[in-house]
Amino acid sequence: MQVTYAFETAEHQQFRKSFRKFLEAEIAPHYAKWDKEGAIPFSMWKQMGDMGYLCPQVEEVYGGLGLDYVYNVIIAEELERVGSGLMGFGLHSDIIVPYVEKFGNASQKERWLPGCVRGDIITAIAMTEPGVGSNLAGVQTTAVKDGDHYIVNGSKTFISNGLYSNIIITVVSTDKAAGHKGISLLVIEEGTEGFTRGRALEKVGQHAQDTAELFFDNCRVPVENLLGEEGQGFYYLMQNLQPERLGVAIASVIAMEDMLAHTTAYVKERHAFGQPISHFQNTQFALAEMATTIEMGRTFVEKLIQRHMNGDNIVTEVSMAKYRLSEQARDMAAQCMQLHGGYGFMEEYKIARRYRDVAVFPIYAGTNEIMKTIIAKNLKLTN
Amino acid sequence: MQVTYAFETAEHQQFRKSFRKFLEAEIAPHYAKWDKEGAIPFSMWKQMGDMGYLCPQVEEVYGGLGLDYVYNVIIAEELERVGSGLMGFGLHSDIIVPYVEKFGNASQKERWLPGCVRGDIITAIAMTEPGVGSNLAGVQTTAVKDGDHYIVNGSKTFISNGLYSNIIITVVSTDKAAGHKGISLLVIEEGTEGFTRGRALEKVGQHAQDTAELFFDNCRVPVENLLGEEGQGFYYLMQNLQPERLGVAIASVIAMEDMLAHTTAYVKERHAFGQPISHFQNTQFALAEMATTIEMGRTFVEKLIQRHMNGDNIVTEVSMAKYRLSEQARDMAAQCMQLHGGYGFMEEYKIARRYRDVAVFPIYAGTNEIMKTIIAKNLKLTN
Amino acid sequence: MQVTYAFETAEHQQFRKSFRKFLEAEIAPHYAKWDKEGAIPFSMWKQMGDMGYLCPQVEEVYGGLGLDYVYNVIIAEELERVGSGLMGFGLHSDIIVPYVEKFGNASQKERWLPGCVRGDIITAIAMTEPGVGSNLAGVQTTAVKDGDHYIVNGSKTFISNGLYSNIIITVVSTDKAAGHKGISLLVIEEGTEGFTRGRALEKVGQHAQDTAELFFDNCRVPVENLLGEEGQGFYYLMQNLQPERLGVAIASVIAMEDMLAHTTAYVKERHAFGQPISHFQNTQFALAEMATTIEMGRTFVEKLIQRHMNGDNIVTEVSMAKYRLSEQARDMAAQCMQLHGGYGFMEEYKIARRYRDVAVFPIYAGTNEIMKTIIAKNLKLTN
Amino acid sequence: MQVTYAFETAEHQQFRKSFRKFLEAEIAPHYAKWDKEGAIPFSMWKQMGDMGYLCPQVEEVYGGLGLDYVYNVIIAEELERVGSGLMGFGLHSDIIVPYVEKFGNASQKERWLPGCVRGDIITAIAMTEPGVGSNLAGVQTTAVKDGDHYIVNGSKTFISNGLYSNIIITVVSTDKAAGHKGISLLVIEEGTEGFTRGRALEKVGQHAQDTAELFFDNCRVPVENLLGEEGQGFYYLMQNLQPERLGVAIASVIAMEDMLAHTTAYVKERHAFGQPISHFQNTQFALAEMATTIEMGRTFVEKLIQRHMNGDNIVTEVSMAKYRLSEQARDMAAQCMQLHGGYGFMEEYKIARRYRDVAVFPIYAGTNEIMKTIIAKNLKLTN
Repeated sequence: MQVTYAFETAEHQQFRKSFRKFLEAEIAPHYAKWDKEGAIPFSMWKQMGDMGYLCPQVEEVYGGLGLDYVYNVIIAEELERVGSGLMGFGLHSDIIVPYVEKFGNASQKERWLPGCVRGDIITAIAMTEPGVGSNLAGVQTTAVKDGDHYIVNGSKTFISNGLYSNIIITVVSTDKAAGHKGISLLVIEEGTEGFTRGRALEKVGQHAQDTAELFFDNCRVPVENLLGEEGQGFYYLMQNLQPERLGVAIASVIAMEDMLAHTTAYVKERHAFGQPISHFQNTQFALAEMATTIEMGRTFVEKLIQRHMNGDNIVTEVSMAKYRLSEQARDMAAQCMQLHGGYGFMEEYKIARRYRDVAVFPIYAGTNEIMKTIIAKNLKLTN
Repeated sequence: MQVTYAFETAEHQQFRKSFRKFLEAEIAPHYAKWDKEGAIPFSMWKQMGDMGYLCPQVEEVYGGLGLDYVYNVIIAEELERVGSGLMGFGLHSDIIVPYVEKFGNASQKERWLPGCVRGDIITAIAMTEPGVGSNLAGVQTTAVKDGDHYIVNGSKTFISNGLYSNIIITVVSTDKAAGHKGISLLVIEEGTEGFTRGRALEKVGQHAQDTAELFFDNCRVPVENLLGEEGQGFYYLMQNLQPERLGVAIASVIAMEDMLAHTTAYVKERHAFGQPISHFQNTQFALAEMATTIEMGRTFVEKLIQRHMNGDNIVTEVSMAKYRLSEQARDMAAQCMQLHGGYGFMEEYKIARRYRDVAVFPIYAGTNEIMKTIIAKNLKLTN
Repeated sequence: MQVTYAFETAEHQQFRKSFRKFLEAEIAPHYAKWDKEGAIPFSMWKQMGDMGYLCPQVEEVYGGLGLDYVYNVIIAEELERVGSGLMGFGLHSDIIVPYVEKFGNASQKERWLPGCVRGDIITAIAMTEPGVGSNLAGVQTTAVKDGDHYIVNGSKTFISNGLYSNIIITVVSTDKAAGHKGISLLVIEEGTEGFTRGRALEKVGQHAQDTAELFFDNCRVPVENLLGEEGQGFYYLMQNLQPERLGVAIASVIAMEDMLAHTTAYVKERHAFGQPISHFQNTQFALAEMATTIEMGRTFVEKLIQRHMNGDNIVTEVSMAKYRLSEQARDMAAQCMQLHGGYGFMEEYKIARRYRDVAVFPIYAGTNEIMKTIIAKNLKLTN
Repeated sequence: MQVTYAFETAEHQQFRKSFRKFLEAEIAPHYAKWDKEGAIPFSMWKQMGDMGYLCPQVEEVYGGLGLDYVYNVIIAEELERVGSGLMGFGLHSDIIVPYVEKFGNASQKERWLPGCVRGDIITAIAMTEPGVGSNLAGVQTTAVKDGDHYIVNGSKTFISNGLYSNIIITVVSTDKAAGHKGISLLVIEEGTEGFTRGRALEKVGQHAQDTAELFFDNCRVPVENLLGEEGQGFYYLMQNLQPERLGVAIASVIAMEDMLAHTTAYVKERHAFGQPISHFQNTQFALAEMATTIEMGRTFVEKLIQRHMNGDNIVTEVSMAKYRLSEQARDMAAQCMQLHGGYGFMEEYKIARRYRDVAVFPIYAGTNEIMKTIIAKNLKLTN
């Protein structure tokens, strides 16, 4: 079965090897502990930055390496292979920082990009609101201009990197009457008056990843922190949803590969009724089915990565990949746990963590129900 | 849809009401805290015992109430409705204590039953061994007679109530050459020399329930602690597997009812795109499907409880119920979490806990693979 | 596993035996031929009637036996066991004739019931219309009173017994402005001027059962053929949907039992790689899963038959049974065909016929989508 | 969504267009009739041959066009789009004739290839035997050398093109003691003494395609009809299984595309409760899920076609594609029929035919159980 993408060059493969080595030395041995403690040490951001593993796509002039998207994919994949709780790095590099790269002006890029690359600045993006969900047209957080500041009021929830981020790209309404055409993106910095954070949200899984509520109470944000133009936020967000969802699809494939690898090792080693569990036809067929799911999934994301890099419009296909692969990952976790027997329910086995962690894949970055709605719309079923 | 069993009398229903009231006052408000802390206070055992909620079937001469099995079902159901982490009470009352009732001699009953009823004695049963699983014929723990003691050596794992139990019915081999005909049951008491316990095992779910490894190192157990006859242990165990598995089937139905109730409430209250989520056809169909699963499940266990009380041989049917309903409960948890959106992944929502807790239903009390093997055998496919 | 219902008396069981004997002698040997030819000989209706196997519930004064509903169930079940293409008998006895019994006046009962019981009169009910489906409120067929006749215009489709029926209970609108309150039932007799039939519709399965389109072109129906009151048709229909859908649920269980029986026999006899296919774990688990589905299904319909006979309102539960069991029957057919290998695709094997026949179970008597809508409504999700 | 393969050149696309035009003119209008009659007119073979649509890969020296495999794929796909009952052409061109091309000697190629290309010679391959299945090591048909002839005895079943073929590549054992190393391929020509055919087997679907049993009773076959070397048959067969299974995977994707297209058209046109069925969320989600399955399937076969043309060893991946896609096609047929309501069960709707036809996809060319066994073996689970 496939182990590298068709489009990976020798350089890419070399990079993957080095990064794996780094992870095995610096991250994997501590990951279970971080997961239990519920946080990744700040120093890891610095260390990742020092090694060039944050935002490798950023232009050299801003401290980056100007590398292609395949490097982002490699980094995100290998982090996911260690554990889903490391997703905050990929979110920062692949999803959030690109907003600054694409929509920021020269001065904003200078202010923030170098820190993002070095790991001095951790980023978050704040879209979802309590009780409103991801319906951008219904954003309740307002930003009213007052001289050279915006006065921001409202709250956000389920914000990844929410607790430890230094800057937060915040989706606000600068013109409620205009609906989604009144949406803007403001960069809110830690320490800004009127900005507070709730406690870490306790989640079923992905414990190492911090997730928090954010509160804005007459929070004064300088107008120079507006990203791009007023009222264009919705369109900026739409452009960036594609890589975020593709990221979940890729993570799903990696999670499944890792689950299958651990389960295969387990069933070969573990005996029941006088033979390895791997000799039972039920085990064999279950693993054969999983391997099929993975191979087809990897082939699909391979093509979508290529098309994404070509700049194709693949909204429908990415929605398909996000929905189907995240669902398969969640279901496969239950199957793999089952094949582990009682050990699968014990935290010391990695499958236990996977089972808890992947449950959110079908939910975040747009629920799978939203994905199907998008697909149906593009199939022209809605009118 | 069905809310009480056809066989419930007015007394049963009255008892259920009282017990619910008790749970709502004494247990439900603290349960989330116990789940987080990983233990139920000892005092709860006493309190349950004082109220007559432990082992209500025990004969009055031993301090019990001599009630029928429906009371056990009611207690187990209402505990499960609060949370799966309370399963230790039912295990004690419905599965373990009956070994003493059925196979103990008068002196043993006098020694242990009153304490079990009062909540002074917490019980456990120790079958599974590390690396051997539930294959009783392969038991590695040995008990060698030495005068008026057995010398026990070996270890056990995944023992529910393992940490806090006062007596443990331990499956040992008193004659390794005899295979399953050499299996015996020894009651090992806390404080016995050579008996130690490992730390609480960290599980994906059911955190309030303690689960532990037990170690026996030249542990000296008096011969008067032998339950029943030497070499008959396997047959004793076989007789009691039926209620244990039926118990998992019943718990699965209750867990599903509770998940559906919480999800129904959530989707009616929560809005998206300007209407309650309950108005979306996808939500409606999903809940209709779940309600169907539950109604059919409840009807099936209703019949099996009746047949169990009639003394019918329902090994095949109970295996069916255990396998199918536990699988449905696990899958329904994922579906219900999905319908909760991001909130479903947050520990403060009950569905989060359900998702973690029910994952072990298809695994414990005999894996679902074992259940299918039993069914297939009884369909006469194996020879 | 269960072979008779808890409520079957010795008389019921004796009757079942006799009826089975009759089927084995008179029907089963010819069924495959009738299926291929696409029709059941008229003489079978007479023969069934002579033996008392049609409408056994009809009062003795009208020539019936006045038997309870269990006899209808037994007859329908044993017919289904031979093949789904015999469903026309049950439709006549259990669904259509009861309209005359319940809503007909004394004179109508005298005219039609004795013939229905003897097999001289074959009945059909005409609801569905081309392009309108089963939405009763949208009935396009009109009946306009003209002196002592109704002038009927319109057409009907998918009418079982449509080709060979002598009387057709036809759903018409006698007052289009009144919507579903303008619906009436007219008994239209063969030979009535202006009434013609289309050719037999070619179906994927159930070939022995005739299904046809009916056309009414200024068809003059005497007013004394009105069943019950004008404008009450909708309510009459609602009352009778429950037994029709329960009938599909029962048929689904029987079809599954028959498929499992044939498949079990096949896998025990057939060898691959040196052993019977039944020895493969994949086969064993598949059959164990099917047996579970059947056992749970039978238990559910058992309860629903009892409750139906008690006169309970079980609309929700019957909708559940119809949807879930019909879907399971369809899916099980595919699985059983698969276990037959290439032979499963050959018409000479009964599973081939089952595969074609059960495909309509989830569609007729109200699609499964309609069933879920009813369940969701009764779960109070729609408002 | 994807409509052409990445590797299709302008010439390929032009060819596809022309071939579609041919099919629309010469085949599609008659297909339903052929399906009902159970045979394709001989003249169609001639016509296909005249147009260059048979075996386009054959070298020009033998009358072919020497085209690449993409042309075979295009022809097979477009035939499947019309109906699965046309699979005999692809079988001839893509699977059977290549045996002669690869293993035949110059004289054999001269004798047979030009006729195969022109449509004068229809081919079949005879592997499966009654009661033995596809287990090649257990072949019962023997060929004993007698001077310059082999004397063949035995029988074969489920032979596609079995009734109308002019030459049959027949799998025989020339040395029973040698097991699979004693297997040879003999070309048996129509009219050979001792060779007879049974009647057309009646199948659930694919009616236009003839399938038959073949009998060999002291059938004398000239030694010069031996294909390749004695005892090498097993290895020859192994090499050709890959394209046959890939062919089923491709056909599955096309069948699904066609089902989705017909169902989409139907739900947009058909109304229920005052709106097109396509407006119901259940319909939309179902179609979105199907579109996802198809897009992922097409992407997977695209990659496998490329790798097959590169000469890669893709036995595992092709087994995955065959199993998963054939299963998905079968299940999708049931879903699409359901969305058609009652019309889906009527033969005049194409989905009815699809439902019957695709049922054999998971069975032929190696059952899906065999596919999973191959995958499991290649996952190294079996030892």
